[in-house]
Amino acid sequence: MCAFKHRTVLEEMNMNWHGRVEEHQGTGEGMGEYEEFLGQVNDIHRLGALQGHLGWDQEVLMPAKGGEARGEMLAWLAGQRHQRLTSPRMGELLDILEAQPLDADQSANVREMRRAYDQAVLLPQSFVEEFAQVRSSALVAWQNARSASDFGQFQPALEALIDMTKQKISHLGVKTTPYDVLLDEYEVGMKVSDYDPLFAGLKERLVPLLNDIVAAQDSSPPHATLDGVLFPIDAQKAFCTRVSEAMGFDFSAGRMDASTHPFSAGLWPGDTRFTTRFDESDPFSCLYAVMHETGHALYEQGLDHAHRFTPRGNAVSLGVHESQSRFWENQIGRTVAFWNVTLPWFRDAFPNAPDFDEHTLNRVANRVEKGFIRVEADEVTYNLHVMLRYEMEKKIFNEGLPAEDIPDTWNAMFQSWFGVDVPSDDVGCLQDIHWSMGAFGYFPTYTLGNLYAAQLLESMRQDLGDVDEIVASGDWSPMLAWLRPRIHQRGSVVSPAELIEDATGSPPTPEPFLDYVESKYRSLYNLG
Amino acid sequence: MCAFKHRTVLEEMNMNWHGRVEEHQGTGEGMGEYEEFLGQVNDIHRLGALQGHLGWDQEVLMPAKGGEARGEMLAWLAGQRHQRLTSPRMGELLDILEAQPLDADQSANVREMRRAYDQAVLLPQSFVEEFAQVRSSALVAWQNARSASDFGQFQPALEALIDMTKQKISHLGVKTTPYDVLLDEYEVGMKVSDYDPLFAGLKERLVPLLNDIVAAQDSSPPHATLDGVLFPIDAQKAFCTRVSEAMGFDFSAGRMDASTHPFSAGLWPGDTRFTTRFDESDPFSCLYAVMHETGHALYEQGLDHAHRFTPRGNAVSLGVHESQSRFWENQIGRTVAFWNVTLPWFRDAFPNAPDFDEHTLNRVANRVEKGFIRVEADEVTYNLHVMLRYEMEKKIFNEGLPAEDIPDTWNAMFQSWFGVDVPSDDVGCLQDIHWSMGAFGYFPTYTLGNLYAAQLLESMRQDLGDVDEIVASGDWSPMLAWLRPRIHQRGSVVSPAELIEDATGSPPTPEPFLDYVESKYRSLYNLG
Repeated sequence: MCAFKHRTVLEEMNMNWHGRVEEHQGTGEGMGEYEEFLGQVNDIHRLGALQGHLGWDQEVLMPAKGGEARGEMLAWLAGQRHQRLTSPRMGELLDILEAQPLDADQSANVREMRRAYDQAVLLPQSFVEEFAQVRSSALVAWQNARSASDFGQFQPALEALIDMTKQKISHLGVKTTPYDVLLDEYEVGMKVSDYDPLFAGLKERLVPLLNDIVAAQDSSPPHATLDGVLFPIDAQKAFCTRVSEAMGFDFSAGRMDASTHPFSAGLWPGDTRFTTRFDESDPFSCLYAVMHETGHALYEQGLDHAHRFTPRGNAVSLGVHESQSRFWENQIGRTVAFWNVTLPWFRDAFPNAPDFDEHTLNRVANRVEKGFIRVEADEVTYNLHVMLRYEMEKKIFNEGLPAEDIPDTWNAMFQSWFGVDVPSDDVGCLQDIHWSMGAFGYFPTYTLGNLYAAQLLESMRQDLGDVDEIVASGDWSPMLAWLRPRIHQRGSVVSPAELIEDATGSPPTPEPFLDYVESKYRSLYNLG
Repeated sequence: MCAFKHRTVLEEMNMNWHGRVEEHQGTGEGMGEYEEFLGQVNDIHRLGALQGHLGWDQEVLMPAKGGEARGEMLAWLAGQRHQRLTSPRMGELLDILEAQPLDADQSANVREMRRAYDQAVLLPQSFVEEFAQVRSSALVAWQNARSASDFGQFQPALEALIDMTKQKISHLGVKTTPYDVLLDEYEVGMKVSDYDPLFAGLKERLVPLLNDIVAAQDSSPPHATLDGVLFPIDAQKAFCTRVSEAMGFDFSAGRMDASTHPFSAGLWPGDTRFTTRFDESDPFSCLYAVMHETGHALYEQGLDHAHRFTPRGNAVSLGVHESQSRFWENQIGRTVAFWNVTLPWFRDAFPNAPDFDEHTLNRVANRVEKGFIRVEADEVTYNLHVMLRYEMEKKIFNEGLPAEDIPDTWNAMFQSWFGVDVPSDDVGCLQDIHWSMGAFGYFPTYTLGNLYAAQLLESMRQDLGDVDEIVASGDWSPMLAWLRPRIHQRGSVVSPAELIEDATGSPPTPEPFLDYVESKYRSLYNLG
């Protein structure tokens, strides 16, 4: 019992201060410009890592009344980062370094910081402040509107968000179409002219497949189900930990916890954390959250820590990150080969569950439905949900669709693609948090993740042989070992598209995904 | 399942940045000097709060491999604080503000920052760096030496620590005796000339009391004991949570967790956390850790949050902090009145425990022993353990005792005061972590805590009447309500000694403690 944590300002200073990091604090005398730049970059990323840590804590542990000061602290950290990123010296250093010969790692850092700097300095401070306020109140309005399933409660906030986003687009500058400015923010280099053909190709093959599956389901006997069985939380935790370990997650360099919405957080070297959720009536909710988040977390654990606190040492994009989670969750986790290995673990954990074989459990895990909710969607419908949001955003920013027309437009499109009427906006255009956070242009990265994952699986198969056999063997390390040098360790050394092309020999393309999903589901449902 | 936590530099900036805190970033144009100063002070304290948060996480949750990057991040935060504290502008602002009329809160902030600034700028950077390195390796050497109970393994590191501490004393400047420089660091204004008579008075009355108690114990029948009973962790957690809540801890603004060494961490408004430890064979280890740390945590929860992230809004000193923990742990928690209320809870939680009455349990909780270990000591011997360390440190810094003579000097002093031979250095001069962290001058604040607590109890009794009756009533809120305005809400508005005098009408004095401990133990052991 000691009070060592209660220290005066002076005392903490004396106890903890450690001079070695000060080497990054100089103003350039006696050190090269790259070293000075790197010091600044490290500081910006350390502040970001602290934001990530507080974000994790907030969702997992924070007591209710901690919210106000937490918000203040996060805002302060963001302000500190912004100040450093937009400092005149950062602009000078970028100019100097772009005229110098640099190696690949250095070039990646300069490239990414240039991108961040240019965009940050283009947004006036008054605009950034106002946008933050608009988002903050929009989040509350959205929560209330969704609970009440009343779009009218969200509409004024949504109008303000769209207006601010249009202002942002014009600050950043339109080169092609306005919506392209937003798309590029979330996956560098991606435009409407890339996504349009990609989504059209997906829709052309996925809609007929979906209709065939639904018809087959309707004409077949009732499906096996786990309804009515209780799956104790502790048993789910044990089962999912075993799966995560088998995937290769290092629990001595990370943690699994619970939160309302599962997420993963890289934090920093040696400390990668992810969360899951527990539903006593549905063991798959937890299992696939764990496999999804472990996929993200394996990427974070596999980054090259020699480049920590720099863009080079960070994951390259949202799309590539999502490819890692979807690869493990769907392409590995929803297969008979997976259940070959894990069925004994499942039976150990849940002795009261029905005694299904691996084929039956796999069918339960792959049930296809024309549901309304994106986050609950299967592999066949998921990308249609994403595409619907993409089409809506394109209409809003490229065609001037007013906010008030969003519900009708959404519902008409859903009816035309899925043949089902949306009964209320809470399961329609109010279901996702993204717009209330001003994150327009984010959704398509989910589909990129699915496409990248299928390309990676195809290439892995060429290199390693039958992946199902590897999965069924129970030793999954060859798959992780294949991903490490091709994706994880490379961080942001090249662009997302180049990374995928280097790893698979082909630029990003939807064919492998379509082949994968058609072959998988036609076989599962005996569609011939 | 979403990947919102994986964001690019740019994206996080746009999502989180909130302009309002930027108001503190100016260089003085258009704002008063005090506002500019306050902005700097807030930043320094926010960095400190982040250190506290990472420290809590490190002891409670962090995976093993997270240590290296965590150390780097803590060092970076300390460097950032040091840089801001010692900036030339801080010195200018302090000069300007000291010549201006200020209110009491402003004066407190200027006073405390002046103290921190003067000491920080007096220590050369090369010295601070070297001292940090010496401490870092000394901690490892001490851990090894204590495990092996081999003082020789620690001696070279201890010599280096003493040498660096003597250098620190000369950098800071000796006004009275060298050791006074260290004492003042941990409790402002306290010197050898204050502590010498205080400890002499304590020793004069405590040693005879101790001998009387031990003689009485030897001649009486065997004592009641809880040995051999198992107390399940979950039941201990439930029981201790109930006690902490009864003390007034707000669990919606804080948490209780487990760690190897119990501690409390203020963190920031609305989020105060403490830890305990669990020993299945000893429910009192957890109970009194919880009462002790809840005492600290109530102080943190009671600070005036309008002054958050400033010295004015922080606890005033280690001694006063310790008074809050010892008050609840000993003066409330080790009484028959306490067991009157909590015995039914104890029986609920531990149905297998022996069916002792409140008097018996209270005797078990107050057993006096001539033990070797300070942290396990009872109220009679505790201050003798502290005094022994004080005398050792005085010899080292004022009389030049060499490190090699420390074990013999320690053991001789222990034998002369307790009449017992120290069998090995792990239970002698190697038992505490403090010296290995360079924290010479810290120990006496523990005794100040005990003395302040007794003074507060005496004053509380004058204001509220019989405190035992309040405790026995089960509604303990009048005690917390008495402490709030007198101690907690005042933060650092005045010095520790003034705070105690304002609260009790008397400057710090040992009489109330001696009266309390003599009357308590003479009555417990029927010494008449």
